[in-house]
Amino acid sequence: MSTTSDQRQLSFKEKLRDVIFGYDTPAGKTFDLILILVITLSVLALVLDSVEVIHQQYRLQLFALEWLFTCAFTVEYGLRIYSSEKPRQYIFSFYGIIDLLSILPSYIALLFPPVNFLVVVRILRVLRVFRVLKLFRYIGEANFLWSAIYNGRRKIFIFMFTVINLIVVFGTMMFVIEGPENGFTNIPSSIYWAIVTITTVGYGDIVPQTALGQTIAAIAMISGYAIIAVPTGIIGAELMQEFRRGDTLKRIESHIVCPHCGLKGHDVAANFCQGCGGRLE
Amino acid sequence: MSTTSDQRQLSFKEKLRDVIFGYDTPAGKTFDLILILVITLSVLALVLDSVEVIHQQYRLQLFALEWLFTCAFTVEYGLRIYSSEKPRQYIFSFYGIIDLLSILPSYIALLFPPVNFLVVVRILRVLRVFRVLKLFRYIGEANFLWSAIYNGRRKIFIFMFTVINLIVVFGTMMFVIEGPENGFTNIPSSIYWAIVTITTVGYGDIVPQTALGQTIAAIAMISGYAIIAVPTGIIGAELMQEFRRGDTLKRIESHIVCPHCGLKGHDVAANFCQGCGGRLE
Amino acid sequence: MSTTSDQRQLSFKEKLRDVIFGYDTPAGKTFDLILILVITLSVLALVLDSVEVIHQQYRLQLFALEWLFTCAFTVEYGLRIYSSEKPRQYIFSFYGIIDLLSILPSYIALLFPPVNFLVVVRILRVLRVFRVLKLFRYIGEANFLWSAIYNGRRKIFIFMFTVINLIVVFGTMMFVIEGPENGFTNIPSSIYWAIVTITTVGYGDIVPQTALGQTIAAIAMISGYAIIAVPTGIIGAELMQEFRRGDTLKRIESHIVCPHCGLKGHDVAANFCQGCGGRLE
Amino acid sequence: MSTTSDQRQLSFKEKLRDVIFGYDTPAGKTFDLILILVITLSVLALVLDSVEVIHQQYRLQLFALEWLFTCAFTVEYGLRIYSSEKPRQYIFSFYGIIDLLSILPSYIALLFPPVNFLVVVRILRVLRVFRVLKLFRYIGEANFLWSAIYNGRRKIFIFMFTVINLIVVFGTMMFVIEGPENGFTNIPSSIYWAIVTITTVGYGDIVPQTALGQTIAAIAMISGYAIIAVPTGIIGAELMQEFRRGDTLKRIESHIVCPHCGLKGHDVAANFCQGCGGRLE
Repeated sequence: MSTTSDQRQLSFKEKLRDVIFGYDTPAGKTFDLILILVITLSVLALVLDSVEVIHQQYRLQLFALEWLFTCAFTVEYGLRIYSSEKPRQYIFSFYGIIDLLSILPSYIALLFPPVNFLVVVRILRVLRVFRVLKLFRYIGEANFLWSAIYNGRRKIFIFMFTVINLIVVFGTMMFVIEGPENGFTNIPSSIYWAIVTITTVGYGDIVPQTALGQTIAAIAMISGYAIIAVPTGIIGAELMQEFRRGDTLKRIESHIVCPHCGLKGHDVAANFCQGCGGRLE
Repeated sequence: MSTTSDQRQLSFKEKLRDVIFGYDTPAGKTFDLILILVITLSVLALVLDSVEVIHQQYRLQLFALEWLFTCAFTVEYGLRIYSSEKPRQYIFSFYGIIDLLSILPSYIALLFPPVNFLVVVRILRVLRVFRVLKLFRYIGEANFLWSAIYNGRRKIFIFMFTVINLIVVFGTMMFVIEGPENGFTNIPSSIYWAIVTITTVGYGDIVPQTALGQTIAAIAMISGYAIIAVPTGIIGAELMQEFRRGDTLKRIESHIVCPHCGLKGHDVAANFCQGCGGRLE
Repeated sequence: MSTTSDQRQLSFKEKLRDVIFGYDTPAGKTFDLILILVITLSVLALVLDSVEVIHQQYRLQLFALEWLFTCAFTVEYGLRIYSSEKPRQYIFSFYGIIDLLSILPSYIALLFPPVNFLVVVRILRVLRVFRVLKLFRYIGEANFLWSAIYNGRRKIFIFMFTVINLIVVFGTMMFVIEGPENGFTNIPSSIYWAIVTITTVGYGDIVPQTALGQTIAAIAMISGYAIIAVPTGIIGAELMQEFRRGDTLKRIESHIVCPHCGLKGHDVAANFCQGCGGRLE
Repeated sequence: MSTTSDQRQLSFKEKLRDVIFGYDTPAGKTFDLILILVITLSVLALVLDSVEVIHQQYRLQLFALEWLFTCAFTVEYGLRIYSSEKPRQYIFSFYGIIDLLSILPSYIALLFPPVNFLVVVRILRVLRVFRVLKLFRYIGEANFLWSAIYNGRRKIFIFMFTVINLIVVFGTMMFVIEGPENGFTNIPSSIYWAIVTITTVGYGDIVPQTALGQTIAAIAMISGYAIIAVPTGIIGAELMQEFRRGDTLKRIESHIVCPHCGLKGHDVAANFCQGCGGRLE
């Protein structure tokens, strides 16, 4: 196990790991960029394949492409398992499962007659592109955004909770007022209407006909219109908090350095270092 | 009245109160969680019952379920009155009325032929779930949100006032310009159109046909689109104020005082006074 | 001119002015509340009168009401001119013109056969209700909001300018791509479509049919969806600035009062008064 | 080359440059205002020309106008090249290309039968109006807005990236669930539906019919409704940062230093040091 050949094999594994999982080396970056390109192309092929005209004219080419992508992704999946430090951990990680789901449907389609919903599973490949965030140092910003949303999660939960209750109450009211004769066939479809209305989507496939129904609908619309202000305010305020916490406070406080002990983060008005008591110039 | 039996009864009442109204004890938490489950199920039953196919196939089961829920809620209502310290206050509180309204319709439906609007009253059960906020310590966040909305209430009132006036003026203009022949049958229905448009819902059931009408509609849309910025800004700014008030002021005021020169406002991590350089304890 | 009778007349005029224009005395408040009620009723009468069924059944009553309101408003208008310090200034002020416009149409309708657009002029009565803002001390908040919008006016102008240019470019593109055969009959109506789409109203009366048209439409939608973030951010940030300027800074700084000279507005960390140099406790 | 005549010519060039490119001299301002007027009129002529009725009635007048504008813009373009310090740089600048594009189509239309898409190129004239920003000192505000958007670009990119992935996944799901029989003919048109829904435009031309489809659609709507909060929060928070950076930091750093104890950070209005009580000059 500790022979030179084993060491060489290990170092090859490590190199491979750097290329496949890493994004610091030029090879790792190139690999990720190629991967993103291939994923985008494979998703595009799936999307185009669903168009009847294209499907009939380029049936064979698209079939070949699909298998080319599946093979490439299978090899990549194998290499990822082989090169990862803890294969089991990778396999059951979020991206590990997504990676498996993006190749599995093609093999299942071989055994069974083509099942339609497999297209959805295949399209999940699109989620693999999120790895790109790591590539371009966007991950810090994503964390920033995420922590703003995470800190506001309880406020957002309360907001969502209130909206869902509003939707149920409005939906039921409209079912009773308008009734099946005006398209509000049952409470679930009335709740669907309420969601379409409160989110201001407004398809117009179900529309109130009676004066009372239109009045209730008007109240629902204005509620929806006003309520959107709440989550927006929450995210904005939480983001500001994040800025205050991480970025600005640090910048304001750290522009004076103690010449004796090198401590940073003094107040603008400070004469003496708060760490060693030495005079600041 | 001050016998041992009475004391025992009181302590039972108190225990019951802790379980039913409280949410600190494990029993209280379990009770609340079960209640939420039962409420959700009862609302779900009502919603499904409105679907014609389900209603005809599961008529008896849904009827039985409804009575099961009604009985459970009746018992719960009785116990709440019995165990509350001030029964009268509970009965006329917001939740007391909601609790009563969620059982009353079933009994009324026994006496009278089923009245349709009772479904709405029954669905108000959904509001009972708001008790859950207490359970998960979300109440602080809800207060936070509420106080932001409360502090901005006058600004929001002015905004709503302006929007409603805009709606009335736009609605009337469109009635005069488009007229009944283009679907704007009267001012109320034109106001309904204005609400649908300004809130950006846009059903498309009433749509301007003339060039002038479309121009006015375009102005109304852009107004609605721009105006939504106002309440959002209000809530965001008020939330920020809340953050500042609670969080920052505390940080500013809780500073350390120098024992040598009496300077206040030192950093929490400071060892030496930043004014005179003296040691802080 | 300086006789006792003249003085008495003047003081009656002043009393009247306090009642009609003022909102500090109980009489002034009562007058304003009654006025709001009458305005609301008169607008309601106009709105209801436009409903065919109501118009035919209550023709006479509504006609009588309209004249009752017109007479009341005429008397009020007369008294306002009579009692105001500078009648000319009142007559040509915003509210003076609105007051005149709310009575004029009824008299014009006597001379000429009823002209339809006079309804719009009459409905402007609704604007008179804005006086209510003065009544409930909402005027400060309205100024607050207004100054936030005013400070952000240039940013909002740039935003609007960009949106309008986007709308013209998108509208023209769709006219060329979709053409008259798909409902985009000319550039003005294509611009109307672009406004309906970018403001996310989405009536669905004009809808792209070609693949290219739907792609451009999708880009327009996402632009509109993302762009709304800009004015919202502007208003929110300007409101925060207003808070910072007026409210909080003052509160933070003014909680220490000098016992020697009474100067407020010291820093939290101050030991000595910055006005007289006296020691602060 | 250094003769008096050359100098005179140069100074004429410079004067011309000041008028055409500058916006500080009265002549420069007047030139820009006239230009804006002419651009607006030429765009208006193009827009009106697309209306069939107007086109047939005013064919000749509009044709003449179009050539008048084209000639004016050609002369202007020539003068700009002639008077600019670095003609090559101007020609290949953004505005240089726009300027060329706004005259080229008219000449092309002479050589070839009128091509429809040239209208789009001509309408790009509207972009030339953006020069006006320089005129009214709006440029600072535009930079302010731009730097807020620029600083938030990574967060906005992540947001857009997530939205696009959501759209692809929702679109594919709906294609599989609803299928061609309900209007979701292929994945591209389902993605179009997803964009229409998530941006809350909601035309209603493609609408889910099945219960499962409506449920997924409801989730898509609520996602879209909630997600709009994110970019709004980003822009608002970034704008606030800009305010803080420019405005507050300046206030903190520009404080007065006590000549007795050297304490910094005094108020602008302070007479005495708040640390030692010494007089400030």
